[in-house]
Amino acid sequence: MRSRSVSIPQGTADASAITPDELRLAVRNHGMPLEALAYDVTPIGMHYLLIHYDVPRVDATSWRLEVDGAVSRPMSLTLADLGARPTVTSAVTFECAGNGRALLDPRPLSQPWLLEAVGTGSWTGTTLAPLLAEAGIADEAVEVLFTGLDRGVEGELEQSYRRSLPVAEALQPDVLLAWGMNGAPLPPQHGFPLRLVVPGWYGMTNVKWVSRITVLDEPFTGYQNARGYRLRLDTDEQGVPVSRMAVRALMVPPGIPDFATRRRFADRTEHVIEGRAWSGAGTIEAVDVSTDGAVTWEPAELEPAADPHAWRRWTFDWRPQAAGDHELCCRATDAAGNRQPLESPWNLGGYANNAVQRVDVTVT
Amino acid sequence: MRSRSVSIPQGTADASAITPDELRLAVRNHGMPLEALAYDVTPIGMHYLLIHYDVPRVDATSWRLEVDGAVSRPMSLTLADLGARPTVTSAVTFECAGNGRALLDPRPLSQPWLLEAVGTGSWTGTTLAPLLAEAGIADEAVEVLFTGLDRGVEGELEQSYRRSLPVAEALQPDVLLAWGMNGAPLPPQHGFPLRLVVPGWYGMTNVKWVSRITVLDEPFTGYQNARGYRLRLDTDEQGVPVSRMAVRALMVPPGIPDFATRRRFADRTEHVIEGRAWSGAGTIEAVDVSTDGAVTWEPAELEPAADPHAWRRWTFDWRPQAAGDHELCCRATDAAGNRQPLESPWNLGGYANNAVQRVDVTVT
Repeated sequence: MRSRSVSIPQGTADASAITPDELRLAVRNHGMPLEALAYDVTPIGMHYLLIHYDVPRVDATSWRLEVDGAVSRPMSLTLADLGARPTVTSAVTFECAGNGRALLDPRPLSQPWLLEAVGTGSWTGTTLAPLLAEAGIADEAVEVLFTGLDRGVEGELEQSYRRSLPVAEALQPDVLLAWGMNGAPLPPQHGFPLRLVVPGWYGMTNVKWVSRITVLDEPFTGYQNARGYRLRLDTDEQGVPVSRMAVRALMVPPGIPDFATRRRFADRTEHVIEGRAWSGAGTIEAVDVSTDGAVTWEPAELEPAADPHAWRRWTFDWRPQAAGDHELCCRATDAAGNRQPLESPWNLGGYANNAVQRVDVTVT
Repeated sequence: MRSRSVSIPQGTADASAITPDELRLAVRNHGMPLEALAYDVTPIGMHYLLIHYDVPRVDATSWRLEVDGAVSRPMSLTLADLGARPTVTSAVTFECAGNGRALLDPRPLSQPWLLEAVGTGSWTGTTLAPLLAEAGIADEAVEVLFTGLDRGVEGELEQSYRRSLPVAEALQPDVLLAWGMNGAPLPPQHGFPLRLVVPGWYGMTNVKWVSRITVLDEPFTGYQNARGYRLRLDTDEQGVPVSRMAVRALMVPPGIPDFATRRRFADRTEHVIEGRAWSGAGTIEAVDVSTDGAVTWEPAELEPAADPHAWRRWTFDWRPQAAGDHELCCRATDAAGNRQPLESPWNLGGYANNAVQRVDVTVT
């Protein structure tokens, strides 16, 4: 890493004024329009995207995956080598760790997500663990580091995007190296030709454009693990690493929107509210809905999960009793006993804000 | 249309504070990351999207295209009926009429585009003119109205998204009804199962989720033609309808970005600056590049256009003579003699801002 001198916005802003820096991020990266919660698998182009630097353009014929570090047999693999390995396809829900950041007050300055940084892809690839076993992980290995081809400056350091995982997590049987999404080759913006897929973890874990896997005999101290993606209240604090997705439910906002404000309007008829729920800590056990701004709650109908790593569909019949303004909310509970809070604890990076969604609807 | 009472943000804001309403639009709609200017055809998911209301979920088996109004033989067509017609594929560059809006001062309040609201799709469909001829356009016909399945509130009016074209424009031989994009069925967010493609016009013309084509014997007075998409200085003014794309060139920002600010850093070596240029008024004749903030200009190398309706690639060799800050600019000139201005005239909707792009690069 080289040190680059650059003025980086730090800290927070008040809720009413998005800064030019945040806008530059928001017009590039994009959320999933919430009506796409209606799909089991999110269509390509509707799935959320958070890209730290630029989308690299990769020549798949010269591309190689290098496996090195604390291994007895380093490897250099082509895309064809990987494709010849046992292949699995799995629907996995991704959520950006910063989802909900722009709803915090004060608002941490970074990609200003509201609620839409989520999506479910159908990922095709090969399991990582057997590949690491073939490479021969050293006994002293503690972490596995994934290096992407995307390069930029962050925290005043020039760097490739890199994230490490503890060895035990990297060896989980559901961790994939994926070259396919929704039945097609990975699109450039989702990591062509190869990305990591770690079910249950926040999106920053799923390193895109992977070119190198390095087994480490000491913990990685690079930016994305040691400084970024940590739950802490100030920069002097070491904090806790962001890891698994907090429990969350989201609904498709009912009715129709106003263009400029996205305010919803609905008729006074029966509405089937639908949504999805997921958690990185266990299966979803319940989703509750409130139609009175989180004063009272009623259970939603939960459907079976299509895939153990994918969000679970839920529905709720709503017949507004009166014209006027209504506030709809939903909250999920997982098998580990986690339930979404009405307000999420604030942290410096604006991570893991899983406060209940609130949708204002005007019934006419 | 029903009148809905809703508080709509009107007017403008100063350059430093994006409003919550604008943010809600920005996290849904998204621009094309400028590095995607490197592709002849923009990959699905990187093409810009501006969706006025919600993306409708359409059942293609029950969907029909109705052709009605001032025609002698109204039609009701299935997707298979359309697919049985002569099929053409054409690469067409789309740009949102509001591209560049957020760079205006004061800033009109709507989708806060910087420069990224552009993309080139490879569209497959059938020519509209023969279909209208079969339906038998009445002699008194003046416009053709396209109605989408997307529905919302805009300007306090509940409406389906609808836009009309003068008959002579609708009958141009390059106007398509498209069911395919980049070799696949239209993705939901691009108008599945059918959209209009009108080469050379701004993006609002290319109505998505088309379900009805109505030949009119008097001009359409609906919102999107009569109130939205007009060049005017205040709401009392009738203004001039937004139509064809103004001439424009954009470049892939060289070097690597800072995450938070998107500021560019480049080494002091040879850089091949690449970009694209397009115009709705004629072919691109020249692209010039400035490396000193628009003080002096040098010609870029222009490549042949891959398709008459698609952007044209250009390149420019840049070897920074000194470390420090540089401002790169590009400007295009079309066959009609239009050249991009350094500053574009302001208008209430923030439309057609084709001022030259400026990219700040720190050379190290």
